[in-house]
Amino acid sequence: MGVRPHVVIVGAGFGGLAAARNLADVPVEVTLIDRHNFTTFQPLLYQVATAGLNAADVAHPIRGLFHAQRNLRVRRGEVVGVDWDRRVVLLDDESDGEEPFDHLVLALGAVATWFDVPGAAEHATPLYTLQDAVRVRNHVLERFEAADADPELIDRGELNFVVVGGGPTGVEMAGALAELFAVVLRRDYPTLPVGRARVVLVEALDSLLGPFHESSQRAALDRLRASQVEVRLGEAVAEVTADHVRFASGEVLPTRTVIWAAGVRANPLAEKLGLPTTRGGRIEVADDLGVPGFEGVWAVGDVAAARDRGGERPLPQLAPVAMQSGAHVARQIGRLLEGRSTVPFRFRDRGTMATIGRRAAVAELPGGVRLRGTVAWLAWLALHLLYLAGLRNRLSVLLNWAWSYLRWDRGPRIILQPSPGPDGG
Amino acid sequence: MGVRPHVVIVGAGFGGLAAARNLADVPVEVTLIDRHNFTTFQPLLYQVATAGLNAADVAHPIRGLFHAQRNLRVRRGEVVGVDWDRRVVLLDDESDGEEPFDHLVLALGAVATWFDVPGAAEHATPLYTLQDAVRVRNHVLERFEAADADPELIDRGELNFVVVGGGPTGVEMAGALAELFAVVLRRDYPTLPVGRARVVLVEALDSLLGPFHESSQRAALDRLRASQVEVRLGEAVAEVTADHVRFASGEVLPTRTVIWAAGVRANPLAEKLGLPTTRGGRIEVADDLGVPGFEGVWAVGDVAAARDRGGERPLPQLAPVAMQSGAHVARQIGRLLEGRSTVPFRFRDRGTMATIGRRAAVAELPGGVRLRGTVAWLAWLALHLLYLAGLRNRLSVLLNWAWSYLRWDRGPRIILQPSPGPDGG
Repeated sequence: MGVRPHVVIVGAGFGGLAAARNLADVPVEVTLIDRHNFTTFQPLLYQVATAGLNAADVAHPIRGLFHAQRNLRVRRGEVVGVDWDRRVVLLDDESDGEEPFDHLVLALGAVATWFDVPGAAEHATPLYTLQDAVRVRNHVLERFEAADADPELIDRGELNFVVVGGGPTGVEMAGALAELFAVVLRRDYPTLPVGRARVVLVEALDSLLGPFHESSQRAALDRLRASQVEVRLGEAVAEVTADHVRFASGEVLPTRTVIWAAGVRANPLAEKLGLPTTRGGRIEVADDLGVPGFEGVWAVGDVAAARDRGGERPLPQLAPVAMQSGAHVARQIGRLLEGRSTVPFRFRDRGTMATIGRRAAVAELPGGVRLRGTVAWLAWLALHLLYLAGLRNRLSVLLNWAWSYLRWDRGPRIILQPSPGPDGG
Repeated sequence: MGVRPHVVIVGAGFGGLAAARNLADVPVEVTLIDRHNFTTFQPLLYQVATAGLNAADVAHPIRGLFHAQRNLRVRRGEVVGVDWDRRVVLLDDESDGEEPFDHLVLALGAVATWFDVPGAAEHATPLYTLQDAVRVRNHVLERFEAADADPELIDRGELNFVVVGGGPTGVEMAGALAELFAVVLRRDYPTLPVGRARVVLVEALDSLLGPFHESSQRAALDRLRASQVEVRLGEAVAEVTADHVRFASGEVLPTRTVIWAAGVRANPLAEKLGLPTTRGGRIEVADDLGVPGFEGVWAVGDVAAARDRGGERPLPQLAPVAMQSGAHVARQIGRLLEGRSTVPFRFRDRGTMATIGRRAAVAELPGGVRLRGTVAWLAWLALHLLYLAGLRNRLSVLLNWAWSYLRWDRGPRIILQPSPGPDGG
């Protein structure tokens, strides 16, 4: 490592990558650790789950992003702890090693939170990792194969699909499922009554898309209902089993598919490390995103309870916050090395958007600008292409989008179950 | 099914698909059964295995191929037997059913054959299914991650890759691996001595690409050796273990990766069905591809021992034979329904080709025309694009090829391990 300070970044999501990139011109050596060899573009996972995109379209090899960044090396491994006295990050047995650090940037991300709903952890699938998305794709297509082989299964809920959570992920997933069924699977299964397939979107609050303006919420609701999605507001899931869900209202719906978009909590590793955390397990940070009492330790993205201008509530666990907080920490490390003091993190809200279906989206930009319909949809497409890592992935996504749009088709609707093999490799 | 005869086709590979398509205008009802919901374009599996293509690029949903063919339905299921008395195909428990047939077209394909080499079945990976290809991709990339974390592993063979079998699959795989290492992974692992990675191609005969002309064989050999592939002719693998292979010559090579392209044998289901089989388990067929003694039962593709003009040796287990034999059987069923007699199968050899690397391939066409180098490579690209099912897959493959060629890069080099999940779904 030479005499330059060593910055270890744990996690190669939006936050970790932003920190890594913004350290390119800082006189440090950087080690970026992730359990996977790829970074996942989570906003498009629902399109992998609904057979619109290839898995590799929304995943980019981490090493490929840093060919030109000489002060950075990538290390694949699972972080299991930190020895605070020796200031080393501890990796799992398989990686068999440790990384000493001068600065540690924790970009650990989040995991699904089950709100203590019985059976949810066992029988629902979140939509947070690439594996989740592939699993949902396989599982959904399997249901249609099963129903096609034995249509009586439809009476037992084989084609009932429950999406829990009316935030952007839940809304996008429900809309994409309804479109997959109506447009694509209807043609794939000509003898199956695909119209009996139900998409039920459950939201505990009285409106979808909580942080959006009421007019956007209504537009989303109208569009989903027009697409035959059954939206249940003010309803919650009380129990999930292998063959049904029970709602808080007492109603029981037979289903084999519960997709959990109800919320995330910080990676539990944060608490395990002995760091101060908030409710939801997020790491408490000072206004410069340093962890109080832990010199040279920073937290960014979903795992950090970053606040804007001393706000009471932490900022939402969204990609823009992660990217900006990652970049902020990189700049603070640079400032400290120049002998300057740190400055507080300021989040610049550039707006938020969600897509609901074909030429349908809602977008809210700063200054009260609200977009709907085709314009919002095109803005959504452009922005997601822009932020996607790697030109090849952008081209591939563009190809698949064009294909879906022009041909009313979804390409990668294959059930690719893993088969156990030699070495589990 | 009405009063039309019912044709059941088992297997949706080249042979089964060709039979299905050519029955479109025959007055029959067709049921096409496959264990997967997709068909695999096997000639490009080695490119999935070397991170050049997405899995879904070489797989097409079977149902999507037959939207317009009204007399065909697709059934996903595993065939476990045939009740010859009742003339029904028996499906596995999960599919829980059976299919009565008037005509049965067996297009069961092949599986790897291990030639009784100890340890091969446990520790080598064939390259015959899409799962195989994804497993090889994950496994190869894992080796580089492991070696990067602990370079001492290189001394113990972590970066030694053995390809067994010098036919087209082995040659293409070895060439693609060498290119992946030299062009792409060298940049991904700047601190790893990637030059120490070895690709060893083992062929028991004295030349590669057995059926090709000597000049093509030599061109392939020269090109592979120029790409640093260690080609061992007249050598065989005597044993495979988790950490080494032992050659027939006695030499031991440490390795964790053995890719088995040494040959295939017919799907063992053929023997289980009680049909007459040849050495290699292929179904004996009459010259019209009907199974002698089994009225209305036909075999096509890799599982059939089809002969051309009473030849002694069955035709090779290659895609063109499968496609032509599938189409032939469809036409014979049509003839029988018209009250005409069947005609013998004639294989039209339109040539054979193999690619070795960037702008390097060999092709042999009828009439003694032999191509090499860029011309052969372009012919190879064009032909494979042409035969690939589905426009979307063609566009995606074209995009990925252009990307690899222009950017010296491979897109989908992600290690996507399956994670066990709810319902195993």
